[in-house]
Amino acid sequence: MNNRRPLFITLEGGDGSGKTTMLGRLAAYMQGRSIPYMITREPGGIEIAEKIRSIILDPQHTSMDARTEALLYAAARRQHLVEKVEPALSEGLTVLCDRFVDSSLVYQGYARGLGMEEVWSINRFAVEGRMPDLTLLFDIDPEIGMSRIAANAEREKNRLDMESMAFHGKVREGYMLIAGNNKERVRIVDASKTPDQVEREMIKYVEDAILKDF
Amino acid sequence: MNNRRPLFITLEGGDGSGKTTMLGRLAAYMQGRSIPYMITREPGGIEIAEKIRSIILDPQHTSMDARTEALLYAAARRQHLVEKVEPALSEGLTVLCDRFVDSSLVYQGYARGLGMEEVWSINRFAVEGRMPDLTLLFDIDPEIGMSRIAANAEREKNRLDMESMAFHGKVREGYMLIAGNNKERVRIVDASKTPDQVEREMIKYVEDAILKDF
Repeated sequence: MNNRRPLFITLEGGDGSGKTTMLGRLAAYMQGRSIPYMITREPGGIEIAEKIRSIILDPQHTSMDARTEALLYAAARRQHLVEKVEPALSEGLTVLCDRFVDSSLVYQGYARGLGMEEVWSINRFAVEGRMPDLTLLFDIDPEIGMSRIAANAEREKNRLDMESMAFHGKVREGYMLIAGNNKERVRIVDASKTPDQVEREMIKYVEDAILKDF
Repeated sequence: MNNRRPLFITLEGGDGSGKTTMLGRLAAYMQGRSIPYMITREPGGIEIAEKIRSIILDPQHTSMDARTEALLYAAARRQHLVEKVEPALSEGLTVLCDRFVDSSLVYQGYARGLGMEEVWSINRFAVEGRMPDLTLLFDIDPEIGMSRIAANAEREKNRLDMESMAFHGKVREGYMLIAGNNKERVRIVDASKTPDQVEREMIKYVEDAILKDF
């Protein structure tokens, strides 16, 4: 099974969608099938990307403009892509990436109002044609997602968790728009079900993607 | 004369074109006419833009991808624009900016081969419609420009000075393409003449731009 073209798979979804748990289960699946893989998420330990990210996250940078931020995310994405994702794919590793272009389109472009087309214009430049073979979109009602997070005492609340429910509603809407426009690439996984059910649905889509290439 | 709309003027040109000397003379002209003005160039002391620039210029970052670099330049441009250029224009200051979008189009887009359209796509996002009212393009044969630099012992040679003559030829070509496509905005100044002649030509274009608004 190791001679196939490695897949580039991204996982997307709002907070509380269980995306990170499912990433672990997907890795276990890859291991069980002896499919060589790499897990990553931007900036992924790539020095230049880490430095860019630290400018974005510096709490002193209160004057950071939303477009500056979007350009910095795109720059970090580019460097992570060329230094980590592309080499892994070249070595034959399937890449499992926690968030990618769609997150920028949804969060900066749609929910924060910069415009999806606008944010896509800079990300198109950043990815230079390298788009995921499969994007797993973990969809959940924001009310349920947020209540899951509130119930999980171990998970540190981040800035996005504090955003209003209206914002999370916009995020979900944005993801649905992308899914509607990219039916070949994006598969919607119902993340409101039990973890085992969500995993089964996810694996079905992954196997479809693998089989498509045979 | 102070009630007029302030102008956003950019100065462009290859190395050795005398652009920086002419910037000083243009400032003296503004002072002589009591036109309130500000001189700047990216990153211009804007903290976020300075930090972005330091990532670009860090000599340890040998793995920096050309597209990452172009995105970082666009990000620094955006922040400098919103924090320094726009506020100055709002206060009624004419802004004299040493290099702007055209430098990215020419150096990254044309001479380094990323493509002018490609580099424009991210800069269009960065400037969000704010383009110069007037761009003074100091045009000189690269052979003459380079020999001027070689003769000037005080000026520290930078990386671009070392580039091959072919590269400088591409830079000039790129600028000519932009001038041809932006005849309303870009004025070509013959920088091979004596400083006084170059200044006279420059001031004529500036006065044309000022008068256009009356």
